[in-house]
Amino acid sequence: MLEQRIQQHFIDSADLKYQAAPILSKPIAAAVQALLACVTSGGKVLACGNGGSAADAQHFSAEFVGRFERERPELAAIALTTDSSILTAIANDYDFSVIFSRQVRALGQPGDVLLAISTSGNSANVLAAIEAAHEREMVVVGLTGHGGGKMSHALRDTDVHICVPHDRTARIQEVHILALHCICDAVDAQLLGDQE
Amino acid sequence: MLEQRIQQHFIDSADLKYQAAPILSKPIAAAVQALLACVTSGGKVLACGNGGSAADAQHFSAEFVGRFERERPELAAIALTTDSSILTAIANDYDFSVIFSRQVRALGQPGDVLLAISTSGNSANVLAAIEAAHEREMVVVGLTGHGGGKMSHALRDTDVHICVPHDRTARIQEVHILALHCICDAVDAQLLGDQE
Ligand SMILES: O=P(O)(O)OC[C@@H](O)[C@H]1O[C@H](O)[C@@H](O)[C@@H](O)[C@@H]1O
Ligand SMILES: O=P(O)(O)OC[C@@H](O)[C@H]1O[C@H](O)[C@@H](O)[C@@H](O)[C@@H]1O
Repeated sequence: MLEQRIQQHFIDSADLKYQAAPILSKPIAAAVQALLACVTSGGKVLACGNGGSAADAQHFSAEFVGRFERERPELAAIALTTDSSILTAIANDYDFSVIFSRQVRALGQPGDVLLAISTSGNSANVLAAIEAAHEREMVVVGLTGHGGGKMSHALRDTDVHICVPHDRTARIQEVHILALHCICDAVDAQLLGDQE
Repeated sequence: MLEQRIQQHFIDSADLKYQAAPILSKPIAAAVQALLACVTSGGKVLACGNGGSAADAQHFSAEFVGRFERERPELAAIALTTDSSILTAIANDYDFSVIFSRQVRALGQPGDVLLAISTSGNSANVLAAIEAAHEREMVVVGLTGHGGGKMSHALRDTDVHICVPHDRTARIQEVHILALHCICDAVDAQLLGDQE
């Protein structure tokens, strides 16, 4: 019974990945191009999200600054989710909704990329970060699900939207980490050549 | 070409989940029982790992202390990967290999669970944490891949080993986060009843 329930999650997660492959390969490829343009011209990635998406922002930054699968020069990425002094100070003195946007205004430069992760597309602090990124002439790569929520309207034509076609947060997150791995793999392939 | 490469990752990730479902449902169910026994008797979960697995340790703790999908009382979990003062002090004064084990000795009690995440099963600091957990009479739930590496030998019969049948770190991590979601879902179902 319990084992059946677990197997059903595995099957649902796998089914969603098959279904999402043809839908998401195009925006993921666009995200790769945006990130390559950024890092090869001296730009950096700022990454944000809440909860599981904060974990994904940090996972991605670790693979850019450290490595993914192959040796290569360090790539510039900063997760905006890690400095608890900054996060608590901003939330306490201003508001929790501006914990990321103030960091984007502090650190963002034209040509940088904001990686904005929100399964609902509705988290206020992520939406505020997108607004700040646009002010700073940054490109935004948004990862969502649930139809994209408010992020659909916040993104511009020059941004990239990777919207997982599902309504369950856990399933969406499982595709987000796969999408981020695809991005790391493709960036490495473009920088270092195709061979594994 | 780039889009094809991306779609191949989606298909590989989905294939692995279908393949792993019947293999991993039993140890994941055992992990659920171990965690339920722990939290319903006043115990807590200590979670650790490096890089993407540190992200997973924090993702899991966020869903235990905050929530997963349904409202329920807070569950006790601590990610040992977040306090940069503790991590840098221990690595600087002792060694990076004991950043988790010293925290386990400081915080661990009999009946607590160590969630030890390592895709290779070989990270020295995770192995040292397992040794410390055994000293503290804690049960270990180990998540690995690559055949389990050294963690296979470090775990006891009373521990749980969730070993993803694959050799690529990214693919293994994609199954780890699914396994952790299965655990959160099953713990909620057991505590709150089966209905969604
Ligand atoms: O809609 P999002 O921006 O993804 O925000 C959701 C998060 O705040 C977290 O909510 C719950 O705690 C859980 O579902 C987490 O997995 C999630 O990241
Ligand atoms: O074998 P593990 O314990 O999973 O350790 C691997 C980590 O140190 C990280 O190594 C690289 O930085 C990347 O592959 C990360 O994804 C990985 O978490």
